[in-house]
Amino acid sequence: MKARVYVSLKETVLDPQGQTICSALRDLGYREITDVRQGKYFEIAIAPETDRLQAAQRIEEVAREVLANPVIEDFRVEFLD
Amino acid sequence: MKARVYVSLKETVLDPQGQTICSALRDLGYREITDVRQGKYFEIAIAPETDRLQAAQRIEEVAREVLANPVIEDFRVEFLD
Repeated sequence: MKARVYVSLKETVLDPQGQTICSALRDLGYREITDVRQGKYFEIAIAPETDRLQAAQRIEEVAREVLANPVIEDFRVEFLD
Repeated sequence: MKARVYVSLKETVLDPQGQTICSALRDLGYREITDVRQGKYFEIAIAPETDRLQAAQRIEEVAREVLANPVIEDFRVEFLD
């Protein structure tokens, strides 16, 4: 079983790294790009014998408590297969 | 128009950061987690007057040439709305 956790800065939080990438891309000629925000993601492999519902709760917990900082970041969890 | 570019290390490339996260999570009691790989993603806003097909080609180009290092990384592009 595999889960993906996507972590991104909240909309209200400034993202200077994304702004730098955006301005670099525009300087390279990609003038149609108006904004870039950067995030990170985690691909998590889960032991196959794990109960699916329990795994979903646990991964949600991992995302909230460990992988994301809920003060400034949002996250979403997605299960594959 | 919005695009998301996901960049991750190729399967054959070691991911020490992911391994560290995996072992930290297991130490915290999440024993069902067997592997973690970390990647990054970019949320790119594109000027609305841009032709969709052309935008797809340009974002693919940005991903390949700038955002990812094709020697060690894979990427995938996804369009929203």
